[in-house]
Amino acid sequence: MALIVQKYGGTSVGDTDRILNVAKRIKTYVDDGNQVVVVVSARSGVTNDLIARAKAFSENPDEREMDMLLAVGEQETIALTAMALHSLGVKAESRTGAQAGIHTDLAHTRARITEITGGDIKELLDEGKVVIVAGFQGINAVGHVSTLGRGGSDLSAIALAAALKADICQIYTDVSGIYTADPRIIKTAKKIPEMSYEELLELASLGSKVMQARSVEFAQKHNVIFEVRSSFNNEPGTIVKSEAPSLEDVVISGVAVDRNQTKVTVSDLPDKPGTAAGIFSKLGEAGIIVDMIVQNVGRGGKANLTFTVSKDDAVKAERVLREACDNLKGANVSLTGDIAKVSVVGTGMRSHSGVAAKFFQVLAENNINVQVITTSEIKISVGISLEQAELAANALHTAFGLDKI
Amino acid sequence: MALIVQKYGGTSVGDTDRILNVAKRIKTYVDDGNQVVVVVSARSGVTNDLIARAKAFSENPDEREMDMLLAVGEQETIALTAMALHSLGVKAESRTGAQAGIHTDLAHTRARITEITGGDIKELLDEGKVVIVAGFQGINAVGHVSTLGRGGSDLSAIALAAALKADICQIYTDVSGIYTADPRIIKTAKKIPEMSYEELLELASLGSKVMQARSVEFAQKHNVIFEVRSSFNNEPGTIVKSEAPSLEDVVISGVAVDRNQTKVTVSDLPDKPGTAAGIFSKLGEAGIIVDMIVQNVGRGGKANLTFTVSKDDAVKAERVLREACDNLKGANVSLTGDIAKVSVVGTGMRSHSGVAAKFFQVLAENNINVQVITTSEIKISVGISLEQAELAANALHTAFGLDKI
Repeated sequence: MALIVQKYGGTSVGDTDRILNVAKRIKTYVDDGNQVVVVVSARSGVTNDLIARAKAFSENPDEREMDMLLAVGEQETIALTAMALHSLGVKAESRTGAQAGIHTDLAHTRARITEITGGDIKELLDEGKVVIVAGFQGINAVGHVSTLGRGGSDLSAIALAAALKADICQIYTDVSGIYTADPRIIKTAKKIPEMSYEELLELASLGSKVMQARSVEFAQKHNVIFEVRSSFNNEPGTIVKSEAPSLEDVVISGVAVDRNQTKVTVSDLPDKPGTAAGIFSKLGEAGIIVDMIVQNVGRGGKANLTFTVSKDDAVKAERVLREACDNLKGANVSLTGDIAKVSVVGTGMRSHSGVAAKFFQVLAENNINVQVITTSEIKISVGISLEQAELAANALHTAFGLDKI
Repeated sequence: MALIVQKYGGTSVGDTDRILNVAKRIKTYVDDGNQVVVVVSARSGVTNDLIARAKAFSENPDEREMDMLLAVGEQETIALTAMALHSLGVKAESRTGAQAGIHTDLAHTRARITEITGGDIKELLDEGKVVIVAGFQGINAVGHVSTLGRGGSDLSAIALAAALKADICQIYTDVSGIYTADPRIIKTAKKIPEMSYEELLELASLGSKVMQARSVEFAQKHNVIFEVRSSFNNEPGTIVKSEAPSLEDVVISGVAVDRNQTKVTVSDLPDKPGTAAGIFSKLGEAGIIVDMIVQNVGRGGKANLTFTVSKDDAVKAERVLREACDNLKGANVSLTGDIAKVSVVGTGMRSHSGVAAKFFQVLAENNINVQVITTSEIKISVGISLEQAELAANALHTAFGLDKI
């Protein structure tokens, strides 16, 4: 008998039939003798509908009231899911985030979890009941409803699994697991059976949108083993845990492509300590995240600084940088084109030499021109032209043996 | 400066525009220097939609989960109403039933209020804020969401007004107040400016569906003055309080017509003590409410018992009575036709003699045959043919001077 926390997203509970399917799936785990805690999101569409109603009054509705409003979505789903289980003869009770003891800080619309008591979940499980908990929401120290922001239901599930010392947390979603690459780009992409938190974190930050980094980090910190799998089939998904066994000769676990990057060049900067820091702090104050960075010393002791920002931030970045350059005599700002970031990720890099060599050799053989490079312990990323992104990703996927795992 | 509790029903907050209209009305009271607590219902349609979703799983969904589900409706409205007020520059905060300290017993879908603490409403009012409270819902001693059943939002408002010692509780609805008769039947019906709790209670039990009896009884017990008025115009409504001044010569405050009664006759009953009690207890066990009752002693020491039940209960009543009569040798049951109950109500009856005489004289002058009669201290009701109901109501309305108040 295991204690399992399951999380179902908005599309999985999108309508009555789907909620019944979720209930049937839960029942198979109950029938196998497991204790099950279920975290659900709002039905898909409900949250957007509520936001639209709020925007009728203001573009920036009060955040406390926004949380009061949005918490409604999950509360509806927990009650309906409990009823669906009852209709199958399964004992179940629902709990709001507050009732499940999901305590947060005082922030609204993006609160952080401070403590999870679990409320009376353990007692309910001991009575043979499935407990259905509203994801995404909590309660703060002054008794107000708070919400956790994007990916909040995943975080609720992982955090509950940690608090309850669950054996596993299953994240049910509309994809079958985590792949070595985006199957829409790389036809030979394979589902990864097991991977480490670190690898998933690198993939998440690279644009694989399966899970938000904060949930993975929470799982890593509390050592919660979780599985990403589909609520629309019965295939095993991807298990994520601290130490995933590397397959023989497979040093790379995935290839990621991010097509949403714009290259920015600031040229003829005075080559003095603190100049780059000054530029980046201005961008930081404006909420702009800088990604890959290259600095060259150019003519006459002047430096050129090239980096990438999200395409959405490009215009704002240019404005902020022009203001900053007004104080730096002679410096120029230019947006130098949209590029793709192609990355390979894998903890195997730590123990295998020659990964970087192989990486750049593959790109060279395919006549791919590299414009920017960044690396971490378990990742190599390059900025290349959008046109060559697919070619590069496919070539790397094959070269690192991912077609065959 | 007064402390005002306002209650807006589902049609008054039915969509974004109407919520904004409600907010504008609240603002006029705030601008006049009043402290305002607002109780709102779910948007019209929302509750029925939620019930339909629940019924997809079961005809009789678990009542605890039903309350969890239905509480969602009001929670949505409080947040949107607060946002609408913000958009007008009015400070406001929303509170769920639980946050407003509306404590109930352990029943679900029809819980009774046990205590109202008001939560932090007083502090919020002192900070110059309007407080928007979710009607219809509360929290029970084990921390579960409960709902108060039909007319629950009215009850929330009246009970909050009592707890906060409000100066008045305004019940905004889709009618302009309480009338001397149903304006669809009596063209000369007039809005009653003031009336007593007792009069409204008699009218409520007679089929005037403006307010549920339990809310009026709560107001009476705690001496809460309330006003029933329209949210779609600015006319004064009807003020209900313990002692309404009787207008000169106006002993009757209203005429009510209930067309939903069926007459049942049980004939040839043994005329022994306990026979009638036995019959009525069978009906009571079956959940059937008996209204007007007449007993006659017939031939050979046998008695005839005639009474009325709701038309909806007629078939069920007949079945229950036939079973009961199997044990009473020779007794017969017959449904003896649908009738209308026409009533006059007024506390003035207590101090004015001759009301009954005038009542029956009016009916006699109009050739109206009376089949059943019941009376209370402040009410006279008769059962007459459906065809004559309108004639009788109009004649009584005129004779008792209600056309001219």
